[in-house]
Amino acid sequence: MIDFVLLIVIAICIIALGLAAILTRNLLSQDEGTAKMREVADAIRVGAEAFIKRQYSTIAMLAIVTAVVIFAIYYLTGQQAIALATAAAFVVGATCSAVAGVVAMWIAVRTNIRTASAAQTSDGKALDFSFRGGAISGLIITSMSLLGVSLTYIALGADPTHTPFVIIGFAFGASFVALFAQLGGGIYTKAADVGADIVGKVEAGIPEDDVRNPATIADLVGDNVGDCAGRGADLFESTAAENIGAMILGVALFPIFGVNGILFPIVMCSLGLLASMIGILSVKGVDGADPMDAMNRGYYITAIISAFFLAGGVYYLLGATPGWMYFVIAGFVGIALSVAFLRVTLYYTDHHYRPVQDIANSSETGAGTNIIMGFSVGLETTAVPAILIGISLLISYWCGTMTGIPQGGLYGTAVATIGMLMVCAYVLTMDTFGPIADNAGGIVEMSQAPDEVRHRMDKLDAAGNTTKALTKGYAIGSASLAVFLLFNAYMADIAKLTGKAFDVVNLANVNVFVGALIGAMLVFLFASLAIRAVSKTAQYVIEEVRVQFRDPAIMAGTKKPDYARVIDITTQGALKNMVLPGALVILFPIIIGVTMKHEALAGFLMVATITGILLALILNNSGGAWDNAKKYIETGVHGGKKSEAHKAAVIGDTVGDPFKDTAGPSLHVLIKLLATLTLVLAPLFI
Amino acid sequence: MIDFVLLIVIAICIIALGLAAILTRNLLSQDEGTAKMREVADAIRVGAEAFIKRQYSTIAMLAIVTAVVIFAIYYLTGQQAIALATAAAFVVGATCSAVAGVVAMWIAVRTNIRTASAAQTSDGKALDFSFRGGAISGLIITSMSLLGVSLTYIALGADPTHTPFVIIGFAFGASFVALFAQLGGGIYTKAADVGADIVGKVEAGIPEDDVRNPATIADLVGDNVGDCAGRGADLFESTAAENIGAMILGVALFPIFGVNGILFPIVMCSLGLLASMIGILSVKGVDGADPMDAMNRGYYITAIISAFFLAGGVYYLLGATPGWMYFVIAGFVGIALSVAFLRVTLYYTDHHYRPVQDIANSSETGAGTNIIMGFSVGLETTAVPAILIGISLLISYWCGTMTGIPQGGLYGTAVATIGMLMVCAYVLTMDTFGPIADNAGGIVEMSQAPDEVRHRMDKLDAAGNTTKALTKGYAIGSASLAVFLLFNAYMADIAKLTGKAFDVVNLANVNVFVGALIGAMLVFLFASLAIRAVSKTAQYVIEEVRVQFRDPAIMAGTKKPDYARVIDITTQGALKNMVLPGALVILFPIIIGVTMKHEALAGFLMVATITGILLALILNNSGGAWDNAKKYIETGVHGGKKSEAHKAAVIGDTVGDPFKDTAGPSLHVLIKLLATLTLVLAPLFI
Repeated sequence: MIDFVLLIVIAICIIALGLAAILTRNLLSQDEGTAKMREVADAIRVGAEAFIKRQYSTIAMLAIVTAVVIFAIYYLTGQQAIALATAAAFVVGATCSAVAGVVAMWIAVRTNIRTASAAQTSDGKALDFSFRGGAISGLIITSMSLLGVSLTYIALGADPTHTPFVIIGFAFGASFVALFAQLGGGIYTKAADVGADIVGKVEAGIPEDDVRNPATIADLVGDNVGDCAGRGADLFESTAAENIGAMILGVALFPIFGVNGILFPIVMCSLGLLASMIGILSVKGVDGADPMDAMNRGYYITAIISAFFLAGGVYYLLGATPGWMYFVIAGFVGIALSVAFLRVTLYYTDHHYRPVQDIANSSETGAGTNIIMGFSVGLETTAVPAILIGISLLISYWCGTMTGIPQGGLYGTAVATIGMLMVCAYVLTMDTFGPIADNAGGIVEMSQAPDEVRHRMDKLDAAGNTTKALTKGYAIGSASLAVFLLFNAYMADIAKLTGKAFDVVNLANVNVFVGALIGAMLVFLFASLAIRAVSKTAQYVIEEVRVQFRDPAIMAGTKKPDYARVIDITTQGALKNMVLPGALVILFPIIIGVTMKHEALAGFLMVATITGILLALILNNSGGAWDNAKKYIETGVHGGKKSEAHKAAVIGDTVGDPFKDTAGPSLHVLIKLLATLTLVLAPLFI
Repeated sequence: MIDFVLLIVIAICIIALGLAAILTRNLLSQDEGTAKMREVADAIRVGAEAFIKRQYSTIAMLAIVTAVVIFAIYYLTGQQAIALATAAAFVVGATCSAVAGVVAMWIAVRTNIRTASAAQTSDGKALDFSFRGGAISGLIITSMSLLGVSLTYIALGADPTHTPFVIIGFAFGASFVALFAQLGGGIYTKAADVGADIVGKVEAGIPEDDVRNPATIADLVGDNVGDCAGRGADLFESTAAENIGAMILGVALFPIFGVNGILFPIVMCSLGLLASMIGILSVKGVDGADPMDAMNRGYYITAIISAFFLAGGVYYLLGATPGWMYFVIAGFVGIALSVAFLRVTLYYTDHHYRPVQDIANSSETGAGTNIIMGFSVGLETTAVPAILIGISLLISYWCGTMTGIPQGGLYGTAVATIGMLMVCAYVLTMDTFGPIADNAGGIVEMSQAPDEVRHRMDKLDAAGNTTKALTKGYAIGSASLAVFLLFNAYMADIAKLTGKAFDVVNLANVNVFVGALIGAMLVFLFASLAIRAVSKTAQYVIEEVRVQFRDPAIMAGTKKPDYARVIDITTQGALKNMVLPGALVILFPIIIGVTMKHEALAGFLMVATITGILLALILNNSGGAWDNAKKYIETGVHGGKKSEAHKAAVIGDTVGDPFKDTAGPSLHVLIKLLATLTLVLAPLFI
């Protein structure tokens, strides 16, 4: 019999999918703009679909091999009973993640043109369209994650103390696809961007998104495949992995809360989805207003409603302990942390504050000082987030302890993580809004629309840049809070497999210390390879663009450049260059785990995670700060556009591109991939 | 009664000091070159001495306060018996470290001019002088460290099971001074360098070391105060801290080896000093030969003799266990690791290999791609060293275990560390040779000596750049191997204080995990502040140089620029800006330790150390690679000097400057400072 609370989850997901369907139908019925706009948008759509098709074919092959390996590992290590179920859960998770990415991209390439068209008359309407396009993705991705976990749970027998350990295959499948989706998309988007900028802006001196530049369409395709599909897959797997991790911790509390403790995470996330729907519907574009105002209001509405739902949910599901109020406080800590992360990210990447202004100032003495300052700012951005994460973990753990139940502390951190995840659908909406607005801006620019239309889109584009930075902050914040529960899920899994308690990861043990050292190193090596992949792929783009620029007809604007060829070259390069870093982060933990066993692997996992969180912050925030320092100078300060300071800032922005859009976001996924991988392959490491 | 082996240590130190005296007398009797050369050299000497005087006055004040705090902590936590002794040991350690720095600098500013003079006739002689100048520093610093530890040990009562725990004050004193010496010197040298380059090379388009640039003398002063005095203090405290850490581990083996196990580290290091003397004397410059050949040969001679001494020493001192051969193998692992680290560093920073060539290639598409590639190379350089450290730790631990004695594994890693440290005096010689050659090159350039003299010095300068990169590799390698024994010394210290075993640092405990997260963050924050300090101080230099350049008489070369004013400004800026990062790394561990207690602090310490090692590798090696990519292009490839690729490479070099000469080397010291600080302040954390 299916538990009643599961029916609530499924019902809310169906409502969310219904809302997404209504929004989609409404959006598709909108005007598609001028013929010139459609021409650009069609090229983007075709390019994005071609990339996604080839990318997911590659990923599918890798996933099939991995599924077979998982089956074999379970079968050969005496876990025959759950071998097929785990491998099947992996395939389902991988498929759902891929579908999530495809949906996000499908919507984005159809919303961009409608947003561009709306911008011809109203900036409020342009915000509405692009935001709703984001909302469709956000709702579908979040409900697919929750439905996927719920239905897999039911399909695997819904045994509260057993199924959570099998369903981890689903989380690993989701992480696996997310890693390659984010990595391949991230390489694609930045190789095209860097390539277009270097030959177009720097060498030929033509503006961004100029029609003569053969790499512009590839650049716009990149926004869709990197930011939309990539981050879609990232947050899909976040929800999946963190829910499943929390469900495993719930098993330990089964004697107290029964099945409620296990289903608590997905029920709360579905309530968060409901809150997000209300938040989304509250956003209404107003002509002439700052788009961020409307979106921020929607965010606060979502957060406040989530807080109420959280309190109610804890009372209803975990009321069996008299100390349930402490769990509510822990959940509030999570919600508060999500707000705090957004504020901190804003401080470090918005030109109203010191860090971006410092970078802009230092551009006056050239690119060298711009880079030094930007890197210094990036390193600095680890401080407040690390302290916030530390405090949140300590408070939520303390709250859990105060409930008086055994293992309550750990469950307290799980409740905090879930609190943070409740606003996920709304954040995903803001996140997908960014690339849609960016794309619409590109379409307006390339279709040579009138200046007023461009100004409307510029404002929206700027808001999109802000939301992209903020949602990366959220993604890394939620990952950081979640990892502690994922470690403990891994330890619970090992304990279940060995039948012995496993609650000490002794860093003073030489094996664990070496594991930790290698784990931290892997994060840096992965970032190196991800950045290098952009550099290599960009090189192909640069060469092709230079060849095309030698044709005087293209430079004169009388002949259309061969956009498709650049798209094709970028696609091939990105797919080729994502394999090495991707394979590395899968093989390394396996090698460490097999040779040095489960405790050393736990040290590896934990220290890799710490390093990964901090490095992701450095890369995301320095990249965002460089980008905005350049934009700040373009507003006219320090000499404005074409000044020496601006040239220096453009170089900083170029450096930041692979940091913030390839390596940084891939690290979010890496962190969770390591956690789910160790969970699933645990039988190998004992 | 003083133990016989201690007499060996003291005797070898006296021999080393005698050799240093002979070399000094011989060197000072050499020709001081042309009047023009002397003019430049005098300005450098005066500037360096002024900086050192002011810097050490600042450090002395900070140290006195710290000594009082240490006394108070011990007195108030029930450790009255050793309060005065620990505080006194701190003062002695701090004083010795300061003297080591001053000596290194004193010799360097007298050797540079004699090297420049020798270069007028012979490059072999110029190598001899500069190398011997380095040797004087190396011998004095190493023997002062060994004498300091030995005599303090005797003065504190020479009680084998008790004194090692009191003598830790000496190590902390050494680290304390080294931190500020390296940080202040590092800020000074790079602020002057960046400032001189940006206004001179980039803005005014005049060559490096041009007499018209008022920041040139400050730049040359910087080589002495940053590289000589800074690294001198760094390796002084390495030897001190690691010897003392190993002595503490020896206490646990007292029942087996008696006092021999405790004095083993300093005896072996003194034998290494003897081996280094032989290596140093074997180096003889040959006109027209590559200077690296002679120095490399000397290094291998030192390493091979050290290996023999190690085997003999182990047999003599630790022969009480039938498995003593395993300790010999562990020691060989340490010596082999020192060679391996030099080779890896060479691969990543020498233009004969792929990494530097990749950076040079990517300079063709501008500064953006140059920086991206350089940073990617920097991140990559963590991989092989981390794996080498991991393997060395595991093998030496395994060797120790195979001896069959309790806690043998840990002592095995200590023996490996000592093996690595044996070549310290020789490495220090190579290290100090670098800035001396650099300075001599600057003197030759500024005194407008004939071209042939410049060519001779260029070759020596290039070798100096290589040795500087290599010795940084050695410094971080030895620090990495040592930290594991320093952690264990901390744990032994805590166990002694509490009377309870302390051998588990459980990363799965939420407090320890948060401590670890904050520890890793602190490393990034410190690097941020160190880099920022260079940027801030360089800004003052840039402004002053611009003001002076506005005087047409200075630009025409008819009026001497005001060198002293730039030196003064840089000194003030460096001293002001070193306080915040320095204070931070002292206060943070105290706050964590006091609030979250000793186990969380151990997590903090260990993960900060892992992160610090890896970040130091990234910063040192990327900086070195950028520097050499620029020099490689200057040999004529990719368009040579004045090409666009060269301009891009100059920007990369500027970015790398504070990485490799300020933040990176300061992190070496930071790692060991954290270890000695936690050791000394242990009574606070229980």
